[in-house]
Amino acid sequence: MPSGENGPRRGFDVSEFEARVAKAQVLMSDVGLDGLLLTTEPEIRYFTGFLTRFWLSPTRPWFLLLPSTGKPVAVVPSIGRDCLVATWLDDVRSWDSPQPDDEGVSLLAGTIREVIGHKIRIGMLEGPETHLRMPLGDFRRLRALLPDAEFVDATGIVRSLRMIKSPVEVEKIAHVCAIVSDVFGAFPGQLAAGMSEVEIFRRFKIACLQEGIDDVDYLVGGAGPGGYRDIISPPSSRRAVAGDILMLDTGAVFDGYFCDFDRNFAFGHVPKDAEKAYAALLEATDSGLDAVRPGATCADIYRAMQHVLEKDFAGSSGVGRMGHGFGMQLTEWPSITATDETVLQPGMVLTLEPSVNLAGGRMMVHEENLVLTHDGPVLLTSAAPETLPVITM
Amino acid sequence: MPSGENGPRRGFDVSEFEARVAKAQVLMSDVGLDGLLLTTEPEIRYFTGFLTRFWLSPTRPWFLLLPSTGKPVAVVPSIGRDCLVATWLDDVRSWDSPQPDDEGVSLLAGTIREVIGHKIRIGMLEGPETHLRMPLGDFRRLRALLPDAEFVDATGIVRSLRMIKSPVEVEKIAHVCAIVSDVFGAFPGQLAAGMSEVEIFRRFKIACLQEGIDDVDYLVGGAGPGGYRDIISPPSSRRAVAGDILMLDTGAVFDGYFCDFDRNFAFGHVPKDAEKAYAALLEATDSGLDAVRPGATCADIYRAMQHVLEKDFAGSSGVGRMGHGFGMQLTEWPSITATDETVLQPGMVLTLEPSVNLAGGRMMVHEENLVLTHDGPVLLTSAAPETLPVITM
Repeated sequence: MPSGENGPRRGFDVSEFEARVAKAQVLMSDVGLDGLLLTTEPEIRYFTGFLTRFWLSPTRPWFLLLPSTGKPVAVVPSIGRDCLVATWLDDVRSWDSPQPDDEGVSLLAGTIREVIGHKIRIGMLEGPETHLRMPLGDFRRLRALLPDAEFVDATGIVRSLRMIKSPVEVEKIAHVCAIVSDVFGAFPGQLAAGMSEVEIFRRFKIACLQEGIDDVDYLVGGAGPGGYRDIISPPSSRRAVAGDILMLDTGAVFDGYFCDFDRNFAFGHVPKDAEKAYAALLEATDSGLDAVRPGATCADIYRAMQHVLEKDFAGSSGVGRMGHGFGMQLTEWPSITATDETVLQPGMVLTLEPSVNLAGGRMMVHEENLVLTHDGPVLLTSAAPETLPVITM
Repeated sequence: MPSGENGPRRGFDVSEFEARVAKAQVLMSDVGLDGLLLTTEPEIRYFTGFLTRFWLSPTRPWFLLLPSTGKPVAVVPSIGRDCLVATWLDDVRSWDSPQPDDEGVSLLAGTIREVIGHKIRIGMLEGPETHLRMPLGDFRRLRALLPDAEFVDATGIVRSLRMIKSPVEVEKIAHVCAIVSDVFGAFPGQLAAGMSEVEIFRRFKIACLQEGIDDVDYLVGGAGPGGYRDIISPPSSRRAVAGDILMLDTGAVFDGYFCDFDRNFAFGHVPKDAEKAYAALLEATDSGLDAVRPGATCADIYRAMQHVLEKDFAGSSGVGRMGHGFGMQLTEWPSITATDETVLQPGMVLTLEPSVNLAGGRMMVHEENLVLTHDGPVLLTSAAPETLPVITM
């Protein structure tokens, strides 16, 4: 079993965080922001390097202030103080937590006044795909403590930074994509007729861990005759039979960075409709890949894929898009839809994820991951087999 | 390898959801609420049974409306429509998503007007340990679309319901606690000097999966001479040496229900201070357990544990509490602190988690899980060994 130390070095050099902060401060200056207030896991990790599973506990909020100049300032619960002190930050403040009557709110307000000022414009994440990771009531109390502060949406700044991955970020994502590609490649050897979905999922997770993945945070899918009914469900106790198509869609993690792709398998034989759908999905992915060029848009990729699929597969699936960004999160901006005009730039990491509807409420989805370079897209996944892998029964 | 079907049956009977909704509606009536609007994973799952890992994707919001009478109404993105239709709900509405310009907001506003009314009091989660799982900007737009609706905090209602687990919820939690207790019991056989923390963590996760756990969402801890520096960090590449104390703290999941407890191990020999700390932590846990009685308070448990610890271990650790509720989440209300006066009731599932500071910035934490019955507490974990298990080197 690999010890996990064979991949890219964990963490980042300080220069990575300095570069992120410098870019953010240029964008903040462009729109006249005196500071950013961040409350969510990926954003706090992006600017500090603080990585923990402890975000699963909703008890304590965490705050990061990014002033217009200088390093970020952390305002964190006591349980995390030493962890933040160990990052590249100089100024870490903490309160004894839990303390529901004043869960960091007065400390945060005081820190904002001291570090950023009183009559200030402060950016927060209020736009698409964001949320406020502190109690709404506490946010109201914070605003009341800062009557002269104007809170404005700064989603665009964080979005534009995080959408472009640095070479060391890409290295981590490429590593997790490569490991999971290998696991998928060898996985038919672990599958047999009569296995329940629960057992199949469990085997897949163990295989990923054995090959050096840290966590298999996301594994969804299912099996059904000729296709599956949805793509976000946990495994059932249903046992695979001949004619089933099995799909596994996974977001596995190495050092806080995700892959996000799926693979399809056929049990016993490949039903005609499934064969046709699989071929169309691969053709659509190739066509999408051809459209991934610096200066093109997400909508261009969507149209290239849709052009292939609409020949034989009318109607859209409920998925609502044919891919998206990913990296620190399983899904990130942008979305590959007919209306997303985000311009593609080198450093973007995307999944292409065409899907089709089949008879009887069934569907099929295929997915590959890529990074866009100046010279065009580079697949991070080992491309799926040209025909559906068949599990002999 | 178990197929995972040997534990409690997955999911719940409809009667479980009917009972939850009925209790919520009584409490809503008590405080004059016309409806509840829920946006977060545990709450939506609590009232519908909808279980998915897809919440990891921040792209799409999910909404559940609980009117003052009748079944909940779901307003969900298209990708989840079929999943919600498959629950006990009758009224499921969806929009084509992603659609950042109107990410369900107008559909939700229209549904609220139709199902609940115009001039209404609607409860949301705004209090401790909650957050709003939709973009803040979209929440502002929702309120603007409902000018006559008064939004008030309903955390108390949801908190009082979710703190008391039903027998079938306890059954799932007991199952995951029992499996992980067995894994911990056999784990010394998998440990050896020179193993890195990364490798130790990986082995533990695989062992849990092999024994029937669905996911090991939370595994933190570490090893160090005589104790460890913090209790929320991911594993490092440091290799264990004689005199190290290793702690693993895990939140493993079966059918959406967590355990949350840790175990300590000594490499080679047990340093004197660690031996003393371990004995004090076990004594404190026993003393806390004695204080867990219907009608007592969280503060009573805290004081019982603190009384033992303060004899030899002055000062508090940064953890900030000595236990908490858990179940659908790794941590839930209430907190076992000196100031939490929550009255203990049968059906509460708690972890007792005393911690002590040691020399050189080190610490030690011990943790056991229990359910409170009418007759007193019942341990869900197999109690830790009376002395630190030693890994021979």
